[in-house]
Amino acid sequence: MAVSTRSDAPSPKVKLGLCQILVGEDKEENIERARRAVEEAARAGAQIVCLPECWNGPYATASFPLFAEPIPPDAEGVDKARSPSLAMLLEVARDCGVLLVGGSIPEARGGKFFNTCVVVRPDGRVAALHRKVHLFDIHVPGGISFRESATLSAGDSLTLVDTSWGFSLGLGICYDIRFPEMAMVLRARGAKLLLFPGAFNLTTGPAHWELLQRARAVDNQVTGNGWGKGRAGLFVAAVSPARNPAASYQAWGHTTVVNPWGEVIATTGHEPALVLADLDMELVETTRRNIPTAQQKRFDLYTPCSQVPK
Amino acid sequence: MAVSTRSDAPSPKVKLGLCQILVGEDKEENIERARRAVEEAARAGAQIVCLPECWNGPYATASFPLFAEPIPPDAEGVDKARSPSLAMLLEVARDCGVLLVGGSIPEARGGKFFNTCVVVRPDGRVAALHRKVHLFDIHVPGGISFRESATLSAGDSLTLVDTSWGFSLGLGICYDIRFPEMAMVLRARGAKLLLFPGAFNLTTGPAHWELLQRARAVDNQVTGNGWGKGRAGLFVAAVSPARNPAASYQAWGHTTVVNPWGEVIATTGHEPALVLADLDMELVETTRRNIPTAQQKRFDLYTPCSQVPK
Repeated sequence: MAVSTRSDAPSPKVKLGLCQILVGEDKEENIERARRAVEEAARAGAQIVCLPECWNGPYATASFPLFAEPIPPDAEGVDKARSPSLAMLLEVARDCGVLLVGGSIPEARGGKFFNTCVVVRPDGRVAALHRKVHLFDIHVPGGISFRESATLSAGDSLTLVDTSWGFSLGLGICYDIRFPEMAMVLRARGAKLLLFPGAFNLTTGPAHWELLQRARAVDNQVTGNGWGKGRAGLFVAAVSPARNPAASYQAWGHTTVVNPWGEVIATTGHEPALVLADLDMELVETTRRNIPTAQQKRFDLYTPCSQVPK
Repeated sequence: MAVSTRSDAPSPKVKLGLCQILVGEDKEENIERARRAVEEAARAGAQIVCLPECWNGPYATASFPLFAEPIPPDAEGVDKARSPSLAMLLEVARDCGVLLVGGSIPEARGGKFFNTCVVVRPDGRVAALHRKVHLFDIHVPGGISFRESATLSAGDSLTLVDTSWGFSLGLGICYDIRFPEMAMVLRARGAKLLLFPGAFNLTTGPAHWELLQRARAVDNQVTGNGWGKGRAGLFVAAVSPARNPAASYQAWGHTTVVNPWGEVIATTGHEPALVLADLDMELVETTRRNIPTAQQKRFDLYTPCSQVPK
């Protein structure tokens, strides 16, 4: 297996590898499939690798508790028998030397269940957790009905990860992408890339999946009044499972990467795929120079979205 | 000329007529062209009619002062010689019995110039003014450079208009559409339709014109925590001048209407056109029922965009 070493000096370019894998009912198989996908991405030169939402078991409210694992605060203490998905993430990130955004898995914690993304550094240390903060409870007659809150609880914080490439990565999970405030706050805190492991469906997928990624990228071109420390523009990517015809929930697929100008720079269909994209982080600054609107937000007319201190 | 009478009882349906007219260097011709376009829209049954941004003269910083008119607070006092564009708007709205969103014209006021939208009720009274609050100052090398602020000043308030169809109309002008906060505040104050007279160009038009309209519609599906008084979803429309090959600024055209699900329900190319759309305001409520996320904004994690009191 090729090892993609991380750069020590901040570099404006980084290769992103997004793993659109098939997810079935067999947890062990899912874990092995995810491991192989991360290895494949690393072999292809990816430095940041991302798995989809709920990759270790079916996306179904009844399944979340069955596939949930404890995620101990100290990754050293991982019990492979109880947390095999987590153990694999830690191993494969270190083996491949990648910054691994571990999609999401159901997390068992204090008698509750969360939809949780674990980020692992290339040395195998856990960098951050994001627990989905906006649960997916919708009902479109003749389309899709789902109520995550039937078995899941929502997270209580927003999550940024600093990277060795000199920029921060903001995290959301799926439905989180519908909330412009969250992206604006992550952007204001310095994010230059937002990653959304997600699983839209055959109703919301064609309607909104790409639209929301492009909107989050373009909305955040515009900075103002010292907000965001002078940074502007965002790359946005969303990583879906492949469509599984046997599953009760049909994922939309179409794992996508959008640049700060709102252009789709990489995407795919609904089959299993590795989606690769070279992110030129300089483009974040270029977009800012092109639309140099540092004084253009009108915070005399409306308030900025700000993070609420915990 | 047909007269489209307004309904007295709130009705869930309203016909929108958007006038994508050619704008040249002759002010009188522009005024007559705009008048005929509004009459044509009314004959076609439109109840709300909207003109494009800067329809009485070229979109050019040097032209704004030359084509500017005073807009007296009391429309009774309009001097036809000094404010011929305004006088025509008041006349044609009354003659046709339409709610007329008068695109925008340069306004001369207190030694300054503004990019101003006048809304006229079917009885010829001025309902509201919106002065563009985000001026268009951008520089995309090899693409487009423009600096409205060279001759224009920005407005100081957000604008809603109540209608006789039982809903409020939020107003923005062109570049205002890039600011999600503004749309969220208008939505929170009860807007179910956002109208943006605008003039994107051949660089930003293909990249962002439709995207931003769809984003503003879909972002505002989601309500929360009493925010927005239980309303959700927005229709969004943007009205451009036709492309004028002789003009220094080439407008993108593509006047468009987007429904609350983010779908384009009417659009056109760059030629002069009347774009008609039947808005079923019930769809605003349907979208809300489908994505019934009244408790889903996480204002414990981030603050809402709120209007700053004046």
